[in-house]
Amino acid sequence: MDDDDPLTRILSARYVAQGRASLAAREKLLSRLVSNRRLLPEGLPDQAVEHLLTTLSTMDSNNFLDNVGVGEREGRVFSSIVRRRCFGMSHGIGRSGDVTAEQPKACGSSAAHKLCAALARDALRIAGMRDVGKRVLVLPLATGMTMTLVVSSMRSRCASEGREGANCVIWCRLDQKTCVKAATCAGLKVVVIDPVLNGDQLETNVAAIERAIDEVGRERLVAVVTSTSCFAPRACDDVEAVARLCRDKDVGHVINNAYGVQSRELCARVNKAWTVGRVDAVVQSTDKNFLVPVGGALVCAGKNDESAVDAVAAAYPGRASASATLDLFITLLSMGEKTWTRLLDERESLYAYMRAELEKVAAEEGERVLASPKNPISMAMTLTCASTTGASPTMFGSMLFSRCVSGTRVIAPGETKTVGGIEFKGFGASHSAYPTTYFTAAAAIGTTRDDVDRFTSVLRKTFKDFKKKTRVAAAAANET
Amino acid sequence: MDDDDPLTRILSARYVAQGRASLAAREKLLSRLVSNRRLLPEGLPDQAVEHLLTTLSTMDSNNFLDNVGVGEREGRVFSSIVRRRCFGMSHGIGRSGDVTAEQPKACGSSAAHKLCAALARDALRIAGMRDVGKRVLVLPLATGMTMTLVVSSMRSRCASEGREGANCVIWCRLDQKTCVKAATCAGLKVVVIDPVLNGDQLETNVAAIERAIDEVGRERLVAVVTSTSCFAPRACDDVEAVARLCRDKDVGHVINNAYGVQSRELCARVNKAWTVGRVDAVVQSTDKNFLVPVGGALVCAGKNDESAVDAVAAAYPGRASASATLDLFITLLSMGEKTWTRLLDERESLYAYMRAELEKVAAEEGERVLASPKNPISMAMTLTCASTTGASPTMFGSMLFSRCVSGTRVIAPGETKTVGGIEFKGFGASHSAYPTTYFTAAAAIGTTRDDVDRFTSVLRKTFKDFKKKTRVAAAAANET
Amino acid sequence: MDDDDPLTRILSARYVAQGRASLAAREKLLSRLVSNRRLLPEGLPDQAVEHLLTTLSTMDSNNFLDNVGVGEREGRVFSSIVRRRCFGMSHGIGRSGDVTAEQPKACGSSAAHKLCAALARDALRIAGMRDVGKRVLVLPLATGMTMTLVVSSMRSRCASEGREGANCVIWCRLDQKTCVKAATCAGLKVVVIDPVLNGDQLETNVAAIERAIDEVGRERLVAVVTSTSCFAPRACDDVEAVARLCRDKDVGHVINNAYGVQSRELCARVNKAWTVGRVDAVVQSTDKNFLVPVGGALVCAGKNDESAVDAVAAAYPGRASASATLDLFITLLSMGEKTWTRLLDERESLYAYMRAELEKVAAEEGERVLASPKNPISMAMTLTCASTTGASPTMFGSMLFSRCVSGTRVIAPGETKTVGGIEFKGFGASHSAYPTTYFTAAAAIGTTRDDVDRFTSVLRKTFKDFKKKTRVAAAAANET
Amino acid sequence: MDDDDPLTRILSARYVAQGRASLAAREKLLSRLVSNRRLLPEGLPDQAVEHLLTTLSTMDSNNFLDNVGVGEREGRVFSSIVRRRCFGMSHGIGRSGDVTAEQPKACGSSAAHKLCAALARDALRIAGMRDVGKRVLVLPLATGMTMTLVVSSMRSRCASEGREGANCVIWCRLDQKTCVKAATCAGLKVVVIDPVLNGDQLETNVAAIERAIDEVGRERLVAVVTSTSCFAPRACDDVEAVARLCRDKDVGHVINNAYGVQSRELCARVNKAWTVGRVDAVVQSTDKNFLVPVGGALVCAGKNDESAVDAVAAAYPGRASASATLDLFITLLSMGEKTWTRLLDERESLYAYMRAELEKVAAEEGERVLASPKNPISMAMTLTCASTTGASPTMFGSMLFSRCVSGTRVIAPGETKTVGGIEFKGFGASHSAYPTTYFTAAAAIGTTRDDVDRFTSVLRKTFKDFKKKTRVAAAAANET
Repeated sequence: MDDDDPLTRILSARYVAQGRASLAAREKLLSRLVSNRRLLPEGLPDQAVEHLLTTLSTMDSNNFLDNVGVGEREGRVFSSIVRRRCFGMSHGIGRSGDVTAEQPKACGSSAAHKLCAALARDALRIAGMRDVGKRVLVLPLATGMTMTLVVSSMRSRCASEGREGANCVIWCRLDQKTCVKAATCAGLKVVVIDPVLNGDQLETNVAAIERAIDEVGRERLVAVVTSTSCFAPRACDDVEAVARLCRDKDVGHVINNAYGVQSRELCARVNKAWTVGRVDAVVQSTDKNFLVPVGGALVCAGKNDESAVDAVAAAYPGRASASATLDLFITLLSMGEKTWTRLLDERESLYAYMRAELEKVAAEEGERVLASPKNPISMAMTLTCASTTGASPTMFGSMLFSRCVSGTRVIAPGETKTVGGIEFKGFGASHSAYPTTYFTAAAAIGTTRDDVDRFTSVLRKTFKDFKKKTRVAAAAANET
Repeated sequence: MDDDDPLTRILSARYVAQGRASLAAREKLLSRLVSNRRLLPEGLPDQAVEHLLTTLSTMDSNNFLDNVGVGEREGRVFSSIVRRRCFGMSHGIGRSGDVTAEQPKACGSSAAHKLCAALARDALRIAGMRDVGKRVLVLPLATGMTMTLVVSSMRSRCASEGREGANCVIWCRLDQKTCVKAATCAGLKVVVIDPVLNGDQLETNVAAIERAIDEVGRERLVAVVTSTSCFAPRACDDVEAVARLCRDKDVGHVINNAYGVQSRELCARVNKAWTVGRVDAVVQSTDKNFLVPVGGALVCAGKNDESAVDAVAAAYPGRASASATLDLFITLLSMGEKTWTRLLDERESLYAYMRAELEKVAAEEGERVLASPKNPISMAMTLTCASTTGASPTMFGSMLFSRCVSGTRVIAPGETKTVGGIEFKGFGASHSAYPTTYFTAAAAIGTTRDDVDRFTSVLRKTFKDFKKKTRVAAAAANET
Repeated sequence: MDDDDPLTRILSARYVAQGRASLAAREKLLSRLVSNRRLLPEGLPDQAVEHLLTTLSTMDSNNFLDNVGVGEREGRVFSSIVRRRCFGMSHGIGRSGDVTAEQPKACGSSAAHKLCAALARDALRIAGMRDVGKRVLVLPLATGMTMTLVVSSMRSRCASEGREGANCVIWCRLDQKTCVKAATCAGLKVVVIDPVLNGDQLETNVAAIERAIDEVGRERLVAVVTSTSCFAPRACDDVEAVARLCRDKDVGHVINNAYGVQSRELCARVNKAWTVGRVDAVVQSTDKNFLVPVGGALVCAGKNDESAVDAVAAAYPGRASASATLDLFITLLSMGEKTWTRLLDERESLYAYMRAELEKVAAEEGERVLASPKNPISMAMTLTCASTTGASPTMFGSMLFSRCVSGTRVIAPGETKTVGGIEFKGFGASHSAYPTTYFTAAAAIGTTRDDVDRFTSVLRKTFKDFKKKTRVAAAAANET
Repeated sequence: MDDDDPLTRILSARYVAQGRASLAAREKLLSRLVSNRRLLPEGLPDQAVEHLLTTLSTMDSNNFLDNVGVGEREGRVFSSIVRRRCFGMSHGIGRSGDVTAEQPKACGSSAAHKLCAALARDALRIAGMRDVGKRVLVLPLATGMTMTLVVSSMRSRCASEGREGANCVIWCRLDQKTCVKAATCAGLKVVVIDPVLNGDQLETNVAAIERAIDEVGRERLVAVVTSTSCFAPRACDDVEAVARLCRDKDVGHVINNAYGVQSRELCARVNKAWTVGRVDAVVQSTDKNFLVPVGGALVCAGKNDESAVDAVAAAYPGRASASATLDLFITLLSMGEKTWTRLLDERESLYAYMRAELEKVAAEEGERVLASPKNPISMAMTLTCASTTGASPTMFGSMLFSRCVSGTRVIAPGETKTVGGIEFKGFGASHSAYPTTYFTAAAAIGTTRDDVDRFTSVLRKTFKDFKKKTRVAAAAANET
């Protein structure tokens, strides 16, 4: 309590003292974030988050009351709506030398970015990546473009090490166009390794990867790319085995852990992989794991070798949007360790609940939920009723969509598609000849029991209507 | 006026009718935007912009009151602060096939993105790119990364046309690290063409470019890269001549028009370039031209050949942040044609004003403003007082910085720097042996007369203090 | 789905149709609110609330794109921060004739106000005022000023009925200054009726009220004022008995139900009161019951006689702030019936929890929780340790305050205070000679179990320190 | 610059120092506001206003990170939209003792309220009330209810001085219902003094007031109420003469300066009034003068006697909404002295412009603008075309309304209306027999030249259509 506090001219010293104590506690909070670089034990209320943001924003030069900007980029913002959206932090992130470098004109934005990276790192650690390296990049790019940037910078490293001709990645097939395009956009060729079918589940063909490494040759190989999170019945790749293989063969290894952070099981596997073998970089989505809008990704590696992560940061040309950083920073401050842990817990129990509820529906409808024990997020239910009646399985998907169920994916065998110049048989199933038609659903972070209940309710109705329609169609077909 | 309007149960029909007319006018506004794809004649007030945004946001599935999401990406947002920041539009932009593709789950976001591109195109047209093509990409990447994406996709095109070995760009030197890194990040080699010194001004060495094209050879050449906007005394590149050359030689040509949209003169030159010769793509910053936060870029071409622009859109792997789009969309709705035109006008007159004011200071201080007639944005004043006294010119810059003048840039001859593996003599000046020390300032969009007045006032004080300090230092040096 | 929908020019008709369906559902929601005048079964997400607000705001003339205002009050707003705070609804509420009247210039604001009143009425009904009248006033005045307005308008009615000399209220003592000032501000005299002590509890002295009515005389009596919610150990007044008495004596009766809406028990008593006897008006706070900022109140009566409520609405001179309405409207839309019911349930169980936890502390410290069975919100614990040691009880309160416990109230016998010209012995206790020192705490709506746990934890520490300090002081006193 | 600044662990000390300097400048700004109690010379940008608000809000107990609230009113807010609207300041203003008293639980809100009052006082001073007293009340009540509160508290003072029977106000007629209701709501009788017609203008009948004072008698008279701002052709009351009269007769005098702050001429007259005579209180609207939403008023007096203002503050029963304070505080911070002065200047020149433009229209249409030299805001134009054709003048008003012109008021002689029990002949004109039909328009603060141009454009069209319609009607009438 300060007798000279000017506020005591208009208010009682005792109350001012208590108010000042609250301001001091906020300042201490910032110091604590800077020192500990950990999620707060408890999340902050919105008022505290906004206070922190306006405080940091005040440290950016465009908000100095006496600043005179005569450069070509001074953080000026025309619209008051836009100004508010970014809390007055308009300078973006990074400098030409490094996308994580501080900006002279934007001290507050720079602090937000650095703290966000520290909090993100802690969140990964809490989720199970116990040996994550010191540096976690928060990039304002979604997973695909981030993968492009990662493999590009790995190619550059190959070149700088004398392997100028390195232009190829070996990739464990996962049927999402973006995965292929991430490599082709970087000008790389893709060697596709189909998974092997084991029971219902699609698993990593480690032997085939080894053969491919030998075939392509270390000179031409930029990296092997594996994935953890994917649609069932594809399993999480055997990232530990591939990591060992890459270490032994001295070739790069990138893990696409797109939405794997939300699963402690997948995080543990990533952590094991970089402990027992080689993992140059792991890429994960911010939106899919942390409930923020699309547009950010985290790049990290194990603490024993972070050089590839450093290289990505240094390769990035120029500045970038601070938007993904800001969304993630706000979210992690709001969550704190307690809520982040609770969300992880809830997702796990939701997986069990969704699976049990779908099994009930499957039993009623004469279908079954595919066995995919190594996929802790997604699950798949057969749609044999479509195959037997000859009805179009995509109609089933359309019916769900028009009933406001989003996120399911109906996969029927037989489609062939060309992506990035590569032809994929059975596209969608991540396998050229998956035996059954099915649809998928995911127990993703943020999904609630109420969502599951409404989903299974719509599902039951849809099965009923679908069967009626196909019977009518079949009857009509028989008559002709 | 509708007798059955439920609101008439609680309010007079006459007033309800007027309120409904206002809602109808807003709906019509949206139709008009969709149909005309032009900036509105007058900008919208914030309330109308927000109403439009919440209306569009209501069309995204995550805001459907009865939506059930069971996918891994459902637009869920944890923090209410973040939700508000994005107006509930959390699905980002693009699909795996194309970054401009609509999203089934996000009709409103998709509309916002498409309308934003249309408005951005119109803004370019109004600024002088009269023959701009139909498709203008709004990418959530700053200029550097966008250049990387553009040259990457051009290399892919070379490869698809059989020139697999194309891995080189010819680049008219412009001393910003990002420009070099944009190419090296894509794995390309950079052939640097120094400008020629003409009077004070640094101009494009077209003959050297021609020689370089021949030397590198069409097989290995991805593109020639020119720039319009740059620090004085470097001039806008002779984009028309280079365009003609590229057409004649059948090689790619990319123009970095980073902050050139704000200058009608530069826009006219770009427009002429793609009219008289070959221009595959033009890249420009959203933040530097449209007063939005850092993080977006526009890619366009002339209407006679937009294939490279299409290729960039198609090459983009996966989704991307909608943030840059949203900022630009809000801003262009708020501006309307009237304010956009006014801002362009004001910038032009500000250039003249700043130049005149700086000339006064120069005359007082025994310096001069360098002649750079082909640079309509930036200007440079000599700092001979630094060279003659032997004082450190960077100290002059520091003194301005600590007096809250941001954006000036002090350049002294002699520095050598390696960027992206390339050694640059005289780095900063865009020339290996620029004869004088100088500092730059820019008459950028949004700068006000008051900024100029405060700048020149600080400048005068800084000259005074700088000279005093250097005299003291010189005296001290003499004494010893 | 409309083929002519202009959005289909830029987006697929199928997705547009789904987006439009969402917009239609929102329009239907508004219709439903207008028709049903009930809380929604489930609360709305923030996006939907904001969409509704911007839609209504678009119907106010100051937001018409082509409005020309040439009056002295046109809803113009200077600051964009302020504009956003009120969602562009700047015309306030009411007209000179009636504070609930619609405004020609502000159709949307008028609709918001009317709907808010309807939702507030439903919330009262759900909380237990089953026979509440049709008209519930939402006034932008806190409870005290609202009481002033109510008794003022009741005096006017007396005058209009020929009782020009009516200038007196009979008031069941409740020691909060505001209660007295509410009457004196209206220029009325206050006849104070002390409660009777029954066990620990202070109960309504109905007989004394009857005597006072006779003494004052109907000619001079504006109303009897009772209260439901109050600090323990004062009980809820016997509003049913007083209502019967007022009916029998044909005198006015106003119930101050300040924070009683949150208790179903108190609501039931109010409902019974107007069923079995006379209740002209019931006043309740919006902030204390509905978790909004301070500044609003609800005025209602039973459905059998709403004339006093109508008179209040008609008496209000001119316009008023829409702020309290907006806060409550947003809150009730966000809550819906489900959450409102849950909050009421939780508060009830919290009362039991807090009482049990305080009883534990009391047992440990040799104190006891006073018996106040007719006060379902507040509770009081003795502070005999203060009386026995002679230590200042207010120090105990200060110690809690400085440990960031707010809301407790320490009451020691013996203080005399003059409020509004009336002298109160034992001020604070609502009784001139309450036998013990005590402090109070409230199980108010929104309080959590975590709050209670932290409270009792601080309480235990405070007792310990308080006793130590008083021992030290006692020892020091003995020595001298 | 502090070497121990924790931020220097993640950022360069030099940049941190500059950021901290900006934070220190903001702290100094707050000190300066507290010390100077004056408008800032230049207004603050929105970011700085928001930073100040979140800083103050952090000082309120409901935002303490470790606060435990166990009272019945703890500033809890349910909706995040509402929380944001009030910047987390939910405790309202005032305490039971005084509406301007600080709140122990809400130090930040209390500071905001006190600073707002100080800034408001300075704004009044700048506008011309040079001798305004120290205390300006910012009340969350619109003008009407504020007048009620003022006259109520004046009646209480009469009573406390022994004039128990004082229950009457003398009021210079001004035909707005609210003015009458403001007195009747307080339970007072109104003695109406009609103005005298002088040329076109309606002026104060000072002699009649004097007679009325004598007739009513000092014992029964609470105050004389005059008005400055009103619809033309009524003039500003002769407040100086009435002030002298009230001083001589020793009776109260209240000035309704509803929207007079925006006119330096009216402010000067108010200032003169309290200098040369008696003025107990002056009431003015915040929304009409400072471009904030409806709902606030300022009460002030001259520095020689502020006792009536103190009495109003002390009479207010309990707490009140902080909303009006917050709106005004934000606005005055945003304006600063420079913009406030500019707005006053612009309004004055707009008055001249509007008058000149209306005179052009009047000349074209055979009408004239009434001479009302003592009304510097409102003006009136005859509508003789209505009287001569027998057409309904209200139709003219409706036509303007339906063309989105709001704020005009058409007045035809002859209407009789009863307000608050008093019958007014010629209601609307403030005179029982004003000779002509006319309509009014106001050159109010915030009106633009563009508004005037659009208004006169609509006006010309309306005259044309009105005359056509009335001709047709007349023709039809003749035929029958």
